[in-house]
Amino acid sequence: MPMAIITLTTDFGEKDHYAGTIKGEIYSELPDAKIVDISHSVSPFNIPEAAYIISNSYSSFPKGTIHVIGIDSELNKENKHIALKLDDHYFICANNGIMSMICSEIVPEKIVEINIHDKIESSFPVLDVFVKVACHIARGGTLEVIGKTIDDIKPIKNLIPFVNEEKNQIIGSVIYIDNYGNVVSNINRKFFQAIQKGRSYEVYARSYKFKTIFNKYSDIVNFDLPSEKRNDEGKGMVVFNSSNYLEIAVYKGNPDNVGSASSLMGLQLLDTITVNFMKD
Amino acid sequence: MPMAIITLTTDFGEKDHYAGTIKGEIYSELPDAKIVDISHSVSPFNIPEAAYIISNSYSSFPKGTIHVIGIDSELNKENKHIALKLDDHYFICANNGIMSMICSEIVPEKIVEINIHDKIESSFPVLDVFVKVACHIARGGTLEVIGKTIDDIKPIKNLIPFVNEEKNQIIGSVIYIDNYGNVVSNINRKFFQAIQKGRSYEVYARSYKFKTIFNKYSDIVNFDLPSEKRNDEGKGMVVFNSSNYLEIAVYKGNPDNVGSASSLMGLQLLDTITVNFMKD
Amino acid sequence: MPMAIITLTTDFGEKDHYAGTIKGEIYSELPDAKIVDISHSVSPFNIPEAAYIISNSYSSFPKGTIHVIGIDSELNKENKHIALKLDDHYFICANNGIMSMICSEIVPEKIVEINIHDKIESSFPVLDVFVKVACHIARGGTLEVIGKTIDDIKPIKNLIPFVNEEKNQIIGSVIYIDNYGNVVSNINRKFFQAIQKGRSYEVYARSYKFKTIFNKYSDIVNFDLPSEKRNDEGKGMVVFNSSNYLEIAVYKGNPDNVGSASSLMGLQLLDTITVNFMKD
Repeated sequence: MPMAIITLTTDFGEKDHYAGTIKGEIYSELPDAKIVDISHSVSPFNIPEAAYIISNSYSSFPKGTIHVIGIDSELNKENKHIALKLDDHYFICANNGIMSMICSEIVPEKIVEINIHDKIESSFPVLDVFVKVACHIARGGTLEVIGKTIDDIKPIKNLIPFVNEEKNQIIGSVIYIDNYGNVVSNINRKFFQAIQKGRSYEVYARSYKFKTIFNKYSDIVNFDLPSEKRNDEGKGMVVFNSSNYLEIAVYKGNPDNVGSASSLMGLQLLDTITVNFMKD
Repeated sequence: MPMAIITLTTDFGEKDHYAGTIKGEIYSELPDAKIVDISHSVSPFNIPEAAYIISNSYSSFPKGTIHVIGIDSELNKENKHIALKLDDHYFICANNGIMSMICSEIVPEKIVEINIHDKIESSFPVLDVFVKVACHIARGGTLEVIGKTIDDIKPIKNLIPFVNEEKNQIIGSVIYIDNYGNVVSNINRKFFQAIQKGRSYEVYARSYKFKTIFNKYSDIVNFDLPSEKRNDEGKGMVVFNSSNYLEIAVYKGNPDNVGSASSLMGLQLLDTITVNFMKD
Repeated sequence: MPMAIITLTTDFGEKDHYAGTIKGEIYSELPDAKIVDISHSVSPFNIPEAAYIISNSYSSFPKGTIHVIGIDSELNKENKHIALKLDDHYFICANNGIMSMICSEIVPEKIVEINIHDKIESSFPVLDVFVKVACHIARGGTLEVIGKTIDDIKPIKNLIPFVNEEKNQIIGSVIYIDNYGNVVSNINRKFFQAIQKGRSYEVYARSYKFKTIFNKYSDIVNFDLPSEKRNDEGKGMVVFNSSNYLEIAVYKGNPDNVGSASSLMGLQLLDTITVNFMKD
């Protein structure tokens, strides 16, 4: 059996020694481990961001992969450590809502509250606890050995968009802003289509209104015009992004110069994105 | 035969899940793959930057390495996907000029326009197309199987500096600004020397004039003076950098505090760098 | 014998091709090498930062690991290249003080001044020299072959905090600010306790005074209050951090929004941190 992959998703940043230390410790325990960075640039303590990143990347890894998520992971009476088996993947993190995005789609096969902590208080639990658990699982160990089974995890709020009683409006919110400044809502394609039932729609973000949801960014370009007559770059648009979330985007946006959906339209995390469905 | 290396050069940034997703997908197809990040911090959609980065790093990898370049890679009628074999390396990218810097030096052995796309439109072509092609090549597959041969790639402008009719002036431009704020021109040593023919010269950048091109940064230091009497740090200078491009630099520059060539001299991408050659 | 791990700690940044080039070169020489990034985001030319990062991460790697440190590494008459064996780890860097933090705790087994340089001047010594030395060591080569033994390395100043004559005051300084904006002093737990001898104390940073040093960040939270009545987030505190240095921290600090110890208290690199010990 080949060694399992261990992925890392943290808010350690790119500069500090934390991620390097974690890797050294894993290689010391498991010389043949394959460690993959998913992200170390989650905003500090930002649980919804981490939830979005891990839920959109975990399933591209092989079954059996072990995902270590180090965000707000200090152990205290309100923030316990958990390990999950779900969709044939393993997740090790704090019970702080990070897993609620994935768990709202797929029921975990097993959840344990980790209880291997020694008496020593640790300010670096990813190193002192999560790595030990990851190596245990990588060696073929079971979850039961390192924790006691629990039934449920802590949810995070505002994950699921609101639908009005008449079922003609979705009120979602911004959950992520990506490297291109594109603004991702919590409205996914499946949810949208279940409410839409084929009706036409309008998407509202602040004072902006959109009547089309594209499948890719360059669909907004009018290729019939010669390129010097086009003005598609920098124009707002709506797509279902590659993770199938409704996204307010700007074609070829760049936060550092021409501007992005976030900067040009003033859209921030937690802002409201509304979809109105028309009468047939 | 050992598994080929697959390198990644993208504008995905350090935070989002895109690079992690790509890696998961490659490991799912090729458990023994060796994936190396060259850069995920190319400025969004910045083709010249990507061209500079890949042209200065690819050849340090072993022959047979597969380079995936994910910059402005969405497929549309004006932006096709290509795969190249050149210098015994493989490159997979959009036909948007990224390869024109390398191809201006070395003629590709083979170029194909990729035609394995399904009917589904993709807003994440690096995942949906480039990874498939990379894994195909890594397994020993040929380019002919995944595309139809084409003769040439799309060039980018302003790559080659201009030389006046009298052959006593090179007019180049800034193509890259590095992590130290050093300002890299498109004038490489070979090109410079071919025009120079041994003559003395002056390098102009904005209102600054330089009469010496150094081989390393600390060559500007006057080691005969005691260190407290030196004022070399923060001083402008010209070097041929480690990639053999003429570079306006500042000794021990740091954009975040003491300043850099870019910040101190106000030099930006696309600014003009001129070299005048003297009469003998 | 498995191939040794080679770690990289540099100020190359995340964007440029330098780190990718280094990795390509190592894989070209040693196809089975395992390369681990510790950090490429050390501030340009910042030797104390690099010293802090490497001293807090190296020992988590297996014995025999080779650590390449590329900070201010251009060779000149005042900045020689060295290789060290210490604590069964190897280090390759410039003799500019980077190793003085580790060497103040552990005496090196062997130090050599590298003398394998060709006549060609190099502006990329990490590529042209350090990689060669790392591969030599990884293949089982000895330090004697690539350099001449020297007795000592160059120290950096201000590493060790000052203690007054009465032994009732430690005057330390800020040596690192981490990704969470927490402010790390040069006062480590062992040093602190040796002076403290069990006495009570007050820690001063600018106009702030602290009477407790915590072991983890959430120790400041009053879990007896209902969560809506707490105001622990954003509050200053002192901990011995996971590297055992005295640190001025803010619970759940984030430089980008709520603020951090550095931003909220105006604490910068080199600022003074004082500890006063009380009469018994």
